[in-house]
Amino acid sequence: MRTPEQVVRAFCAEVSSRDASTVRELFHPDAVFHDPPKQPQRGREEVLSGLAAIFTRFEVVTFEIRHLAAAGEVVLTERVDWLGTKERAAPVPVMGTFEIRDGLIHQWRDYFDQNFATALIQGDQPAG
Amino acid sequence: MRTPEQVVRAFCAEVSSRDASTVRELFHPDAVFHDPPKQPQRGREEVLSGLAAIFTRFEVVTFEIRHLAAAGEVVLTERVDWLGTKERAAPVPVMGTFEIRDGLIHQWRDYFDQNFATALIQGDQPAG
Repeated sequence: MRTPEQVVRAFCAEVSSRDASTVRELFHPDAVFHDPPKQPQRGREEVLSGLAAIFTRFEVVTFEIRHLAAAGEVVLTERVDWLGTKERAAPVPVMGTFEIRDGLIHQWRDYFDQNFATALIQGDQPAG
Repeated sequence: MRTPEQVVRAFCAEVSSRDASTVRELFHPDAVFHDPPKQPQRGREEVLSGLAAIFTRFEVVTFEIRHLAAAGEVVLTERVDWLGTKERAAPVPVMGTFEIRDGLIHQWRDYFDQNFATALIQGDQPAG
């Protein structure tokens, strides 16, 4: 079985495929995704639906890990999530917490500024 | 010398004192604070001025650590930052990265939704 760190590194690598069926195997059936201002997405199917919408919307989805540290089953990440087209992808600064259960992602919480992310993606905001 | 984890735990504990001179000893002279949508605060004096403004504005400043994990000199935190009065403090969901140099905080980056934090602090938004 993969370590918690390996699960999260595999997930961050596999989102680039933009294939929900590929990342599906990494999620626990009771998985929950939450970015605090919004309502949580509960259950693997709902989480994967949310990911599928991102995969449809963006031609490029790359989770670049700046830093990662694990404590037991909890893995904390600092990332740059690149979202956009092949010509222009926006670097969205994000931190995320993953809680692993039975070698699968059970809880996933992402932290970022929603307005800043939107402005970066729309190209209204310089990336600096 | 404190470990990187000990430095960050000490900082998160000491902010409750709301005394910039107490937390000062934990910052490197070249410290930088950054929450991505805003301009970075550069140098210990500027970072401490920012903290002093928070200490003046809020009667309660408590950094509650939900999860913490260290990888070498880098310490990642998932926190609830309680900000407000003794009667009503808002629980702001935050993640933060701390990079330690010479046993002192050299880089500090916080990630949260600015509008959500403002709404929580103003009491416009339920904490759920």
